[in-house]
Amino acid sequence: MVAPIITLLTDFGLADPYVGVMKGVILGIANDARIVDLGHDVGAQNIREGNFALRGAWTYFPAGTIHVAVVDPGVGSQRRILAARSQGHIFLAPDNGILTGVLGDDAEIRCVTNSDWFRCRQISRTFHGRDIFAPVAAHLARGEAFDAVGERVTDPVRLDLPRPSRRPDGSFVGSVVHVDSFGNLITNFAVAELGDAVNSITAIDMLGCTLPPPSESYAAVGLGQTLTIIDSFDFLEIAVRGGSAAKHFNAGVGDEVRIRFAR
Amino acid sequence: MVAPIITLLTDFGLADPYVGVMKGVILGIANDARIVDLGHDVGAQNIREGNFALRGAWTYFPAGTIHVAVVDPGVGSQRRILAARSQGHIFLAPDNGILTGVLGDDAEIRCVTNSDWFRCRQISRTFHGRDIFAPVAAHLARGEAFDAVGERVTDPVRLDLPRPSRRPDGSFVGSVVHVDSFGNLITNFAVAELGDAVNSITAIDMLGCTLPPPSESYAAVGLGQTLTIIDSFDFLEIAVRGGSAAKHFNAGVGDEVRIRFAR
Amino acid sequence: MVAPIITLLTDFGLADPYVGVMKGVILGIANDARIVDLGHDVGAQNIREGNFALRGAWTYFPAGTIHVAVVDPGVGSQRRILAARSQGHIFLAPDNGILTGVLGDDAEIRCVTNSDWFRCRQISRTFHGRDIFAPVAAHLARGEAFDAVGERVTDPVRLDLPRPSRRPDGSFVGSVVHVDSFGNLITNFAVAELGDAVNSITAIDMLGCTLPPPSESYAAVGLGQTLTIIDSFDFLEIAVRGGSAAKHFNAGVGDEVRIRFAR
Repeated sequence: MVAPIITLLTDFGLADPYVGVMKGVILGIANDARIVDLGHDVGAQNIREGNFALRGAWTYFPAGTIHVAVVDPGVGSQRRILAARSQGHIFLAPDNGILTGVLGDDAEIRCVTNSDWFRCRQISRTFHGRDIFAPVAAHLARGEAFDAVGERVTDPVRLDLPRPSRRPDGSFVGSVVHVDSFGNLITNFAVAELGDAVNSITAIDMLGCTLPPPSESYAAVGLGQTLTIIDSFDFLEIAVRGGSAAKHFNAGVGDEVRIRFAR
Repeated sequence: MVAPIITLLTDFGLADPYVGVMKGVILGIANDARIVDLGHDVGAQNIREGNFALRGAWTYFPAGTIHVAVVDPGVGSQRRILAARSQGHIFLAPDNGILTGVLGDDAEIRCVTNSDWFRCRQISRTFHGRDIFAPVAAHLARGEAFDAVGERVTDPVRLDLPRPSRRPDGSFVGSVVHVDSFGNLITNFAVAELGDAVNSITAIDMLGCTLPPPSESYAAVGLGQTLTIIDSFDFLEIAVRGGSAAKHFNAGVGDEVRIRFAR
Repeated sequence: MVAPIITLLTDFGLADPYVGVMKGVILGIANDARIVDLGHDVGAQNIREGNFALRGAWTYFPAGTIHVAVVDPGVGSQRRILAARSQGHIFLAPDNGILTGVLGDDAEIRCVTNSDWFRCRQISRTFHGRDIFAPVAAHLARGEAFDAVGERVTDPVRLDLPRPSRRPDGSFVGSVVHVDSFGNLITNFAVAELGDAVNSITAIDMLGCTLPPPSESYAAVGLGQTLTIIDSFDFLEIAVRGGSAAKHFNAGVGDEVRIRFAR
């Protein structure tokens, strides 16, 4: 029998036992669940950062995986908690936009209200990860009916994600949307959206510097040299071989990136 | 069949493979054990910090869980290692007070001396986590008899934990005992001890500032505003919505907190 | 039935979901695999640091464990990926020397070329951890034939690890090769190589300071005092009880350490 997988993405950090406590609650209900950390170092209450991580990661898990994302500045307020079923996966998250770009057109979205699945009648105002998200995920991992989680909703909160725009001169202007732990600068230029145009890039501009079209690999340039590359999640990335592009360019999230094409 | 759960709490950090090595030893003896990290970023040899984390976390695990806490400044000395059975859980820790407030009146405490369960005859002087704690936890996880671990002891080391005290004017004076990774200041005022008085709090003083009685949720105040709240472990907490109270007040462990009540 | 164990050692950090994604790929192929993190905070592209961690850790896992080490500055270049079977364990790593000192004389080393086991036909140039290492490890964890991974190779890249040398005056000169998270300075003096001479050490010199022969335990000296000790991996270590030797001596990897012996 296949053991159910539950992924956890939070901004709780690992210094406190908050994540461990969530796992304790899960294993007390679904002893055979396989729990995988997607990460707990999302910036405190940084919904966009959590969204970026979840969007990149979930597709690499097998169908049936339950993804729990708790970056939740509104905990204790009237914000809803969502459970969504989409593309064979299940997602649990506060209704704050963290699922933007994750759910497909097939998504069945419900509001988590079934308190039979909560940890106790008197849930805390501050730790729904433990009192709601963990036990609800565990009940779903046990195979209990998805539609028992609560009523359907059709108006989930969506983030307004920055998207590249076309300029009169034919160039596209986007931005850095993530800096990874190597200091690579991930942009919002997706190969899926650029299409064949990716092959006619002539130059990439950022912060007054001009970079060459995407290289085939980091190793295509010398150590310490700058390059652009299509990253492993199919976004345009600005990098320094063996170094940190974030430090090299003193660049970060929000910095403008322009792609120029052959005419 | 229910797989046994082993939690690990250490000050080993995750930069070195010490924790991974403990898991290797455990899985070599108890292949089906489910290992959960409570945390490995306890301050080096900070017994109080380890105690705080363990006290908060263990109750959220199912009965039968084995909790291993290795914050052990006395490793290699004559300090004892304790195994305790209490409230349906098992605890393994050096005898340095880290189990203070964890064990109940029902606790059966034994000194770990059964070297048949140690990793090898020639154990190291510096890494009992690998050579004693991990293999003993694994033997217990396999269901071997708890009383085979060693002889009973009745005099475990106890920490002298700071407790709030009542002042002549009717106020209570306690202190910050933990700063979590969000910068929330956790005090040693427990709801269980305050009882109904929690509802007649009129003001809370810290470092010359006066704070209001506990709010119902973080969302009860505006972003960046200070508040007090009953945290998810039922302690009084001082917080800043969407920010760090530790930074805002330049406060930390040991700072005095006073609660005033309606007369 | 015994569940297969896969260890992961990378320089990916835990801020991004790269490690979680590798686990998703593994569990999608080998649902029952037990995945253990050896560590993900190896310095970016620091092969020596990865090698040090792997050499110390792998022996504590049971036979049959599959160890995956991805510290891979040459990703996307023509560097080979190796699979090795040695001493009952399996190792997967880029061919950059990270397995130096890990593989025994019995090692059967193969080049990973069986693309049937890769995640997809069009693998990325930048994330072989996800596209090659994870799925190949998972196929091996399912018990598929080791020799199906690719052809044998006999010329793996080896690191030139610094080794202690004997001086005319009879002393040995080695160096600090690792600083652990407590600030302990691990040298390259191995008990296995020193043999009985370890008992006739009279003094240890580093950065102009003279330290005593190895103590029996940290507790043999007072808090804050310096000592030397044979560490839990049987290397000579320079430490400060309850403190950081790295800070105390302002010392780090590469600093020379001399052992003097009784004549």
